Amino acid sequence: MSKSNVGLIGAGKIGQIHANNMLQSDDLHLKTVADPFINQSVSDYLSEYSCRITSDPEDIFQDEEIEAVFICSLTETHAPYIIKAARAGKHIFCEKPISLHIENSMEALKVVQECGVKLQIGFNRRFDKHFKKIHDLVSEGAIGNQHLIKISSRDPQPPPHEYIGKSGGMFIDMTIHDFDMVRFITGSEVNEISVKASNLVDPVFSKYNDVDTAVITMMLENGAIAVIDNSRQAVYGYDQRVEVFGSKGVIETENEKETNIKVSTRESVSLDHPKYFFLERYKDAYVNEIHEFALAIKHNSNVLSSGTDGIEAETLAIAAKKSLEEGRTISISEIDVFSMIGGENV
Amino acid sequence: MSKSNVGLIGAGKIGQIHANNMLQSDDLHLKTVADPFINQSVSDYLSEYSCRITSDPEDIFQDEEIEAVFICSLTETHAPYIIKAARAGKHIFCEKPISLHIENSMEALKVVQECGVKLQIGFNRRFDKHFKKIHDLVSEGAIGNQHLIKISSRDPQPPPHEYIGKSGGMFIDMTIHDFDMVRFITGSEVNEISVKASNLVDPVFSKYNDVDTAVITMMLENGAIAVIDNSRQAVYGYDQRVEVFGSKGVIETENEKETNIKVSTRESVSLDHPKYFFLERYKDAYVNEIHEFALAIKHNSNVLSSGTDGIEAETLAIAAKKSLEEGRTISISEIDVFSMIGGENV
Amino acid sequence: MSKSNVGLIGAGKIGQIHANNMLQSDDLHLKTVADPFINQSVSDYLSEYSCRITSDPEDIFQDEEIEAVFICSLTETHAPYIIKAARAGKHIFCEKPISLHIENSMEALKVVQECGVKLQIGFNRRFDKHFKKIHDLVSEGAIGNQHLIKISSRDPQPPPHEYIGKSGGMFIDMTIHDFDMVRFITGSEVNEISVKASNLVDPVFSKYNDVDTAVITMMLENGAIAVIDNSRQAVYGYDQRVEVFGSKGVIETENEKETNIKVSTRESVSLDHPKYFFLERYKDAYVNEIHEFALAIKHNSNVLSSGTDGIEAETLAIAAKKSLEEGRTISISEIDVFSMIGGENV
Amino acid sequence: MSKSNVGLIGAGKIGQIHANNMLQSDDLHLKTVADPFINQSVSDYLSEYSCRITSDPEDIFQDEEIEAVFICSLTETHAPYIIKAARAGKHIFCEKPISLHIENSMEALKVVQECGVKLQIGFNRRFDKHFKKIHDLVSEGAIGNQHLIKISSRDPQPPPHEYIGKSGGMFIDMTIHDFDMVRFITGSEVNEISVKASNLVDPVFSKYNDVDTAVITMMLENGAIAVIDNSRQAVYGYDQRVEVFGSKGVIETENEKETNIKVSTRESVSLDHPKYFFLERYKDAYVNEIHEFALAIKHNSNVLSSGTDGIEAETLAIAAKKSLEEGRTISISEIDVFSMIGGENV
Repeated sequence: MSKSNVGLIGAGKIGQIHANNMLQSDDLHLKTVADPFINQSVSDYLSEYSCRITSDPEDIFQDEEIEAVFICSLTETHAPYIIKAARAGKHIFCEKPISLHIENSMEALKVVQECGVKLQIGFNRRFDKHFKKIHDLVSEGAIGNQHLIKISSRDPQPPPHEYIGKSGGMFIDMTIHDFDMVRFITGSEVNEISVKASNLVDPVFSKYNDVDTAVITMMLENGAIAVIDNSRQAVYGYDQRVEVFGSKGVIETENEKETNIKVSTRESVSLDHPKYFFLERYKDAYVNEIHEFALAIKHNSNVLSSGTDGIEAETLAIAAKKSLEEGRTISISEIDVFSMIGGENV
Repeated sequence: MSKSNVGLIGAGKIGQIHANNMLQSDDLHLKTVADPFINQSVSDYLSEYSCRITSDPEDIFQDEEIEAVFICSLTETHAPYIIKAARAGKHIFCEKPISLHIENSMEALKVVQECGVKLQIGFNRRFDKHFKKIHDLVSEGAIGNQHLIKISSRDPQPPPHEYIGKSGGMFIDMTIHDFDMVRFITGSEVNEISVKASNLVDPVFSKYNDVDTAVITMMLENGAIAVIDNSRQAVYGYDQRVEVFGSKGVIETENEKETNIKVSTRESVSLDHPKYFFLERYKDAYVNEIHEFALAIKHNSNVLSSGTDGIEAETLAIAAKKSLEEGRTISISEIDVFSMIGGENV
Repeated sequence: MSKSNVGLIGAGKIGQIHANNMLQSDDLHLKTVADPFINQSVSDYLSEYSCRITSDPEDIFQDEEIEAVFICSLTETHAPYIIKAARAGKHIFCEKPISLHIENSMEALKVVQECGVKLQIGFNRRFDKHFKKIHDLVSEGAIGNQHLIKISSRDPQPPPHEYIGKSGGMFIDMTIHDFDMVRFITGSEVNEISVKASNLVDPVFSKYNDVDTAVITMMLENGAIAVIDNSRQAVYGYDQRVEVFGSKGVIETENEKETNIKVSTRESVSLDHPKYFFLERYKDAYVNEIHEFALAIKHNSNVLSSGTDGIEAETLAIAAKKSLEEGRTISISEIDVFSMIGGENV
Repeated sequence: MSKSNVGLIGAGKIGQIHANNMLQSDDLHLKTVADPFINQSVSDYLSEYSCRITSDPEDIFQDEEIEAVFICSLTETHAPYIIKAARAGKHIFCEKPISLHIENSMEALKVVQECGVKLQIGFNRRFDKHFKKIHDLVSEGAIGNQHLIKISSRDPQPPPHEYIGKSGGMFIDMTIHDFDMVRFITGSEVNEISVKASNLVDPVFSKYNDVDTAVITMMLENGAIAVIDNSRQAVYGYDQRVEVFGSKGVIETENEKETNIKVSTRESVSLDHPKYFFLERYKDAYVNEIHEFALAIKHNSNVLSSGTDGIEAETLAIAAKKSLEEGRTISISEIDVFSMIGGENV
């Protein structure tokens, strides 16, 4: 067993998840973490595992022993770090989105292609066992031709106020995962998109010209109609459901619950709540995604969630925003970003 | 106990349901059935209960003992029979839709108002215990302010080919029930509507310029977003689910199944299918709706599914068709039918 | 359609259920009700349907037009009325148990056999669609050879104190239905029985030398082990579940709920309660059982719940009581009642 | 963070689970593994983590750096190794049962007490989140006074034939976990036990004078009645359910499924299977139990699954066997083993 040496940039919430999973990984060895503002207890914890802590990502890019870089820093730094890592010949795992400006995303992707390194985008839900199984069953034709795809995706609570302004808006910050799920599960591209959205959860979203509640309808290349509903606040917990309906039947998922317990009394019959948020709900998916990344490096195979997938989802987010602003259906061909870069799975 | 005498026009599938329920009713007495093409076995069966069979609806309109008329004949006859029944001073129960041409519906409604009789439209789902409870919980504020309303409504099989051409199209034939459910459950009117639809189930729908699969999104007066998905063919059985999501939580229904049995073997873990179609699924709702109609007559109270409700749902069906044809969001105020009639619950 | 004329003895709670169902039946016509203490409103209601009310059951036995008698009076009168009805040549539907003293039950059964009339015992659960389907699937071999049969049967509340003393004890009053279900679902007789029981719900049961909570284990002729658990008080509602486990799998039922609604809030995720008690839970089963009785008369076929079934269940109740009293496993052959009467399905 | 050094004896199936979990643990460091017949690939894998491999357990007992010993070897070696480990001053984690002869178990326990080391028995189910939550809710009084406890515990497939003869029989090999669950969840001791059991799955069990299917009923000190049903073969997967019924309600668990997916087609409505066997079902429980063991060492607190718990469960297994052999209810006081050792939680 030889583990790939990894450098991690950004030791915030999601960076810590990946760090932790790497410490227990059979495939990846976390050699260096770069974060100028790293939390002391995180730093102490990592040091115990002989992990080097630095404030300068260059210590990662210039380390010849390091094979792969995890980019978990602020969104605005994703594209520049991707470019640096690619030029240093490192494989890259980058959290979504690549950037808030698709030109930047495309530029980064172009460099990745030129340098011939692998780039995996952090679409963790592709590695969730429930959604993976839906994907597999749909591919195998279990429900025949696809007619309707429905995704409910609702966060348990809105992000902090200070985050909202720099989030890029709900579509690129939150719905981007659902856009990717539509493409992943159906195996089809989107032709057009139509959005109805509103500000119902908290007036603060309006201040930032953002929405918190939306229904997004898409016509797919394969003829099916997809519909996503989003809310920034489902008070009962993280709500993540998918349904695919077709000529031969329907596949649905329920939310994962804390436990399978049912308590019946005179007053009520109660089940447990859905798992609270993404860290609990997608705990195993985060483990699986870095394992798959390691395998792609080891076997020099395609990553399962590519830079192209990142760009496509960002494009849908842009189209969604445009649909909302202009009050009309947007053909994806209007967002002519992809012709600029060409090429397929990276 | 004094039962109201009833005349029934049209002894087809749905007419037989109502007839049967009246034979077991404590409130209504089925005196006369008018249908020139009545099936012999139906005729024999009704005769055993001393029910008079006639081919001429006039025998009902002119019978002074008859207090109420059930109109279950072909859609094109609904409006004319409503007018005749109203002028004869009979209370009216009429299957949906009132007509395929909203001017006719409105004219009928106007006569009903002038004559001061009651008119109940056959929106049976309002009388289903599951949906009724959702309505009640939503009204009581169980889920706070409404944000999202989702309705899945899928038939187990398409109607016969010869019916499709005269159905008026999916929106007025099938979705009309879902439009009514949106208004019933939310207690709110619709401001605008946007439709994505396609022909995926059977090419025959295209021949009639009709669709068989649709996603319909609505912005409601109360600020919420509603979305209906329809299919003419869910091979696993009648799929009828409602979900209402709001600031304090979410309410959902599952389909009613044939039985609650689960069978687990090496090969599979199986539940029973949903009830096959509307006759099974809404069996009790059909009983409840005529009981409530009888009570409205008895206590001279408002019906729970009025002519106005019928017109509103028809208006939404017209707007949906327009949205599909013009490829844009339609404001309900564009379909300016209601100003022509004015008035409230009839 | 010719309906069989029926006389009903005893217009209490269960008698009213049957009366009501007969008023809506296509097979049975309720001609006479005999009850010296009939409630005035019940009497008025029945009179509207031209039903004769009498205080004397002889008015039923001596009426030549009456083909069948429903015996819903106090348990102590069941056997004598069965004998009278049989001698009058009437078919008989009798509520369980036939009597509290098995000699009396057997004597009644003997007369029934001599007179060649039909006797159906009110084991309503055999006519519940869920249990019927379990029975059918087990018979068809869906779970292979039977290994374990589990029945949970818990009432929502204890009977009135004054009833307990004359109930004959929990086993013959309540468990008798479960004993019948074991025989019905497995198609097998019981070889031996072992009881653990206690007084946990209400001390009043002890006063009457009765129990309110029990676990009853049985070895069946077919080799399987059956276990029933009973409680006189499940505060969350009527709990009626069956599970059959075998070499090829397991079949289970859930309770029927009031509605299929799920409400999720910050505080809880709630389902509806099970239906409250037997009138709600077995509403359709009561309709089905009298329909099947009518068919057995019409086609001169075997009833689906015979006098023999009644005797067998009573025998198991006796054995259960003996097991509890003597603190040991009782072989059913010790309760040598059946040799005295011989014969099969009546 | 200082990890406790651990030595592991026996690198079979369950030993490998613990080894793997220790390699990812923040609390425990696997220093040495003793197994004369260790599989080469396991040996290679462990060596990569700098784990020492030896054939002689003495290398563990005599290593002063080692604080705790995991005993995962054959059952017959448990007691002798416990004694050696205790005398060497090591804390002990031992798989169940302590031994097949309770005198040996008690002798081992006595040495443990004398030496003042901790002993945790591998009752993994106490650390399963579902059962833990049932335990907590029951303790908090969520269902009031306990009346009925029901446990279904069925393996997906019988053990290999060669194992059956040395297993000690189903009660001490398999049911021992369920006996512990009864004690854990109720917080009560057992007064008497009554067993009905049979050989239905495979005739091979009879050859070894063993059973494969059982219903075990227990009267508890707290007045409740507990019933366990066991099968050596549930072809649909590992079936592990618990239900606790009391004066204020009922708590139940469902099995954990592979995924939450439902697939509905014309032919069937299917859920996923339960997780296949203990390694999948109790994956997290195995992680939790060694973490809790580490905490007990660190904080010098009581283990959550003590030697006394082991002895009590073994006693119940003995009583169960006696009940089956003698065909009568056994009072636990007849199995007078515990007076010999005295003392409480070890």
